[in-house]
Amino acid sequence: MTDMERFTRARRPVIGVMGANEPAPFTLEAARRLGQLLAEAGWVVLTGGRPAGVMEAASAGAKTVAGSLTIGVLPTGPDGPVSAHVDVAVFTGLGDARNAVNVLSSDVVVACGVEGPGTASEVALALKAGRPTVLLAPTPTAAEFFRALAGKTTLHEVATPEAVIALIEEQLGIPRWRAD
Amino acid sequence: MTDMERFTRARRPVIGVMGANEPAPFTLEAARRLGQLLAEAGWVVLTGGRPAGVMEAASAGAKTVAGSLTIGVLPTGPDGPVSAHVDVAVFTGLGDARNAVNVLSSDVVVACGVEGPGTASEVALALKAGRPTVLLAPTPTAAEFFRALAGKTTLHEVATPEAVIALIEEQLGIPRWRAD
Amino acid sequence: MTDMERFTRARRPVIGVMGANEPAPFTLEAARRLGQLLAEAGWVVLTGGRPAGVMEAASAGAKTVAGSLTIGVLPTGPDGPVSAHVDVAVFTGLGDARNAVNVLSSDVVVACGVEGPGTASEVALALKAGRPTVLLAPTPTAAEFFRALAGKTTLHEVATPEAVIALIEEQLGIPRWRAD
Amino acid sequence: MTDMERFTRARRPVIGVMGANEPAPFTLEAARRLGQLLAEAGWVVLTGGRPAGVMEAASAGAKTVAGSLTIGVLPTGPDGPVSAHVDVAVFTGLGDARNAVNVLSSDVVVACGVEGPGTASEVALALKAGRPTVLLAPTPTAAEFFRALAGKTTLHEVATPEAVIALIEEQLGIPRWRAD
Repeated sequence: MTDMERFTRARRPVIGVMGANEPAPFTLEAARRLGQLLAEAGWVVLTGGRPAGVMEAASAGAKTVAGSLTIGVLPTGPDGPVSAHVDVAVFTGLGDARNAVNVLSSDVVVACGVEGPGTASEVALALKAGRPTVLLAPTPTAAEFFRALAGKTTLHEVATPEAVIALIEEQLGIPRWRAD
Repeated sequence: MTDMERFTRARRPVIGVMGANEPAPFTLEAARRLGQLLAEAGWVVLTGGRPAGVMEAASAGAKTVAGSLTIGVLPTGPDGPVSAHVDVAVFTGLGDARNAVNVLSSDVVVACGVEGPGTASEVALALKAGRPTVLLAPTPTAAEFFRALAGKTTLHEVATPEAVIALIEEQLGIPRWRAD
Repeated sequence: MTDMERFTRARRPVIGVMGANEPAPFTLEAARRLGQLLAEAGWVVLTGGRPAGVMEAASAGAKTVAGSLTIGVLPTGPDGPVSAHVDVAVFTGLGDARNAVNVLSSDVVVACGVEGPGTASEVALALKAGRPTVLLAPTPTAAEFFRALAGKTTLHEVATPEAVIALIEEQLGIPRWRAD
Repeated sequence: MTDMERFTRARRPVIGVMGANEPAPFTLEAARRLGQLLAEAGWVVLTGGRPAGVMEAASAGAKTVAGSLTIGVLPTGPDGPVSAHVDVAVFTGLGDARNAVNVLSSDVVVACGVEGPGTASEVALALKAGRPTVLLAPTPTAAEFFRALAGKTTLHEVATPEAVIALIEEQLGIPRWRAD
């Protein structure tokens, strides 16, 4: 299946936002803004679902937009904590093996900083699976490290949440979505 | 966490519908009707997501209702087939290990017939995980078999899709949901 | 790959023994005897690895035999409890999703009784995956239930641990193994 | 559980060797040597099990040693390819989600080079899970990248297979194992 076939299906595009549990304040603000912009484009915002860090901020940003849809793919079963900004919780019970599920379920994987090992594993798994992958404001070392691993997968690097949206829409050709 | 605490959270309830890939015509019709009724109650309809059997029929039934939301939790990665009636696809890449994810992610697990081994595994995993479990129109042998395994989990048996809705709402106390 | 090709590889055959955490005393005794006989045939004994029930008894039986090898595939990470009779612990961290791993990793799946939902899920997953499956001393209801689900997978029913060995060796054609 | 408690159990220590499918010739030679040295210490050698790259080389090296034991934790089900040097194959059917299983099942995780995204995901998951992690001959960028992510997990960097053995035995206190 080509990228074009994947994105011309009727299904609402899903953008995964990955990031640290305890990120820098700057990253947290970027995650909130990114979630809002993704939701304004009509795309589903998928995160790790826990009430912490980038996951929480991206979902919270998305839920400021009417008609937004947030999915949380959690490492725990249904007794684990879930962000209040998650509309649908997928309880995997898989621990960190769920990181592979997040990546496969996202039409585009956006790492909002690479400040923890969980996020690093998700970027690596995204490159392995050939998912379109975006690093938002990575450190030079992170960017250099993942560039060397990307192989045939295109790795994108951008500086702002606004640039993520432009990249997804214009370069990756994923259309905005309007619920009818 | 008690059942009451779980269901009084703000999150839209998720009802999982499990069933065979190649069910009897009677079962297929029940699945379609069940999907429609669950969606009319405002609940998210979660299935295995493939374009076959009970999964497809339940999702198709749900999508006849305005404002419905269907989630498919798939065994494949993003290149695998997905029912056209699935709004959000969760691509696990886990093969049949994803059956455990379906069960944990459903506030109630409804087996629409037990006509294949995949469905049997999901009912068994639901009982193991203590999820509220409903058998819709089971054979006497299936009902007897699972009753013996249920232990502390309550196993419900009903004859019609309408009775599933009544059970979920009245007996399990899950409120109808209205998107605002 | 045909069954013959699978079993003529150089790899030591792996027989999975599944069963309840809290089985009847009769079942526990059968599990211990079964583990011993499988080990005497030179086969690897694979279980769920926890220090309880059929898993523990089958591993303990195997470890009475010199040169035996027991593998435990656990639902937990490395901090979870492991039977002292397990030689190699595979810590999946997957919860009950690991039941699918047990089944795929076993050349033959033997259910030593079907007294709990975990075992029922494993038998169902084995039938789904087309693994050779043996029910040892099932209840009439369990036997009837799984027979109806077996489809193209051959489901074997035997009464004693000795009959399991004869079935695996003679009917399934799996050779005894001698470490050199 | 402390590290000491973990390693004073009766169970034979398991050392995971991770690395690329298509590594540099230098890395392949190091993997073969590392597998041999780990086996000479009596430790179980765990790999991803496929007939390629570092996995294959480490298992092959281990199997030059009498009494060695190699475990392969595979992404596929039983129809997928397995290295001929794997003694026991664990077929997960989980795709790349099995990387989390490799890491949790290893008392120490050794990355033999970090030349592909799969290996990078395993190092990241090992750091996330707090497993003792060793980078053998990493590039300066990889070393710098993972050092920044390690947090409370100790990340070790060494230059040769011999140094890996010394580190595991002397610094991590894992005793050599003698089968009786």
